[in-house]
Parts: sequence; C-alpha cells; structure tokens
Amino acid sequence: MALYEQTVPQFTKMLSNIEAWLDLGAEYAKAKNFDVAVLLTSRLAPDQFHLLRQVQAACDQAKSACARLTGKEPPKHPDTEVTFDELKARIATVKSYLATFTAKDFEGAESRMIPLAFMPGKGLVGADFLSEMALPNFYFHTSMTYAILRHNGVDLGKRHFIGGLNLQDV
Amino acid sequence: MALYEQTVPQFTKMLSNIEAWLDLGAEYAKAKNFDVAVLLTSRLAPDQFHLLRQVQAACDQAKSACARLTGKEPPKHPDTEVTFDELKARIATVKSYLATFTAKDFEGAESRMIPLAFMPGKGLVGADFLSEMALPNFYFHTSMTYAILRHNGVDLGKRHFIGGLNLQDV
Repeated sequence: MALYEQTVPQFTKMLSNIEAWLDLGAEYAKAKNFDVAVLLTSRLAPDQFHLLRQVQAACDQAKSACARLTGKEPPKHPDTEVTFDELKARIATVKSYLATFTAKDFEGAESRMIPLAFMPGKGLVGADFLSEMALPNFYFHTSMTYAILRHNGVDLGKRHFIGGLNLQDV
Repeated sequence: MALYEQTVPQFTKMLSNIEAWLDLGAEYAKAKNFDVAVLLTSRLAPDQFHLLRQVQAACDQAKSACARLTGKEPPKHPDTEVTFDELKARIATVKSYLATFTAKDFEGAESRMIPLAFMPGKGLVGADFLSEMALPNFYFHTSMTYAILRHNGVDLGKRHFIGGLNLQDV
C-alpha cells in the first residue's frame, strides 16, 4: 500500500472538509447575528487550544507528516492568523503545498527513520510514524475542530466529517 | 506497507488508551463525589452520541474495519452496555477479537472490493476503505470520547491520546 495514497489525498480532502465546516460556522454566526470570531476563540476546556489554533495544528500535522515521510524540510507557517479569512488562507496554503508532492516522493517512506525532536536519540520508522503519530495527531486536531463547532450549535453531521468517497461499482 | 500493521496494533493501542481515559474519568468522579454514570451519558451537543455510545462506536469501527478488510464476518455486539464495568468489558471483548487476526489475514486486503451497506451497488477498494472510512471513523469516535471527558474536566492531555510509541534508536 502506497504511503502517498494514505496521506496526500486524504489530508487534502479533510482540509477541504474543514473549510466547509468553517463556512457553515460563518453562516451560523451570520444567521444568529454574532461575530464569527467568537467561534474562532471557542474551546471545549480552558486549557485546550481554541478553534483557530486547532485548525492551525491540523494544517501543521498534514504539512509536516508529508515533509518528514519524504525527507523534505517543511515550509514555516508562523501562527499569525487571527481572522476567519486569514485562517482560510492558511488552509489554502497548506493544500497548495500538499499538491507539490508526488507518489514518487514517498518511495521508501515506510522504512525511513524519522527522528523525534521531542525525544532526542529516538525516532520512528516511517510506517509507524504514519500510524502512531501522523494520522492520530491529524485526526485529533481535525476532530477537535469539528467538536468545537458542533458544541457551539453548528449543524454538522458525520457526513461532513467523512466528506467525499472514491466510490467504485461493485 | 502492510494493512495489518496499520490497523490491528493501532486500534488495539487506542482502545487501551480509551480504557485509561475512562479510568481517569472514574477517578475524577470519585474525587468530585459524583456518579460516573453522569460522564457516560454526557455529550457535546444534544443530537450527538453520548460518551458510552461513542465508545461503543469506536469498538464497532475497529472490529468491522478488520473484519471487512479480511473478508470475515464480524461478531455481533448489541449495544446493551449501561454501566462503566459493562463498557470496559465491551472494549476488552473487542481487543480479544482483534488479537485473533494475523498479518496473513490481511494479504491482498488493499485491493479487496468492500461493498458499502448504506450505498447499494457501490463500494471502496480496501486501501481507500482504510484511509477514507475506517481510520477517519475510528479516530472520530475516539476523539469524541476524549473530547467529552476533557470538556467535563477530566485531566487529559495529548499524550493520553497518542499513547505508547514503537520507538527506535536513531
């Protein structure tokens, strides 16, 4: 199974899903006549990242997972976004970056040793990095984004989380 | 990359992580002198599954993903659990079921056609089923379980979500 297929298209789709959730959040704010910035700074617990930071983190996880699995240096994206439009632009930037990867970039990624910055001298083999770190971290921040919006009344369901499927005739 | 490695060990670890979060929830309930059943029936939105049902759903996603990718019939687990101990037993049952799978069971799983019950005549190829359905659904319910506990004050952090890592010397 190719690591490209397990990362780039799925991260890209999930980031597009987040864009759609944010748009639903903005519509909800307009309909209820409150500033969408209230949603952006909402959180589920006082010591948890707020919505805007969850989206930044999901972007970073997608970006750095693909970069690290392919031995590239990820571009730096300082967390300077404050507004709804700035956050949407951050997502678009990361989607454009993901679009630069090819399946060939991921050749051998499953056995590449990936050092962990927070654990000097230790690392994970690429396949383990994907399943134990990259995917759980990406889905964690993606799910928290969804959960904060849902908790605040935005009309989201599971279908918005899953998004489109590469359906085949059986 | 082997589909066994991307599913069985990671689902098993995440289910063990959920057991640990539930234990922290029970300790929290005891320390604050409230019934742990209050946590089990908590939710983030009135039209969302409560905690107990999120755990059942995570169990079902892990079980059915492995069964469907390997062409097996998953065991039926009716959602009859009500108490904390019953929920813990459900998780243990699913972990035992996952332990029956071998890497050999997953041979050819990436190209196996998996029909979708909710979309007659349509299906997903195994590799797409894993990345587009099984993993997002599993992490969705796992993350909602975490989010409900966190929202209610249980002292969870990202390390509890990620759990142990298959670390190597670099």
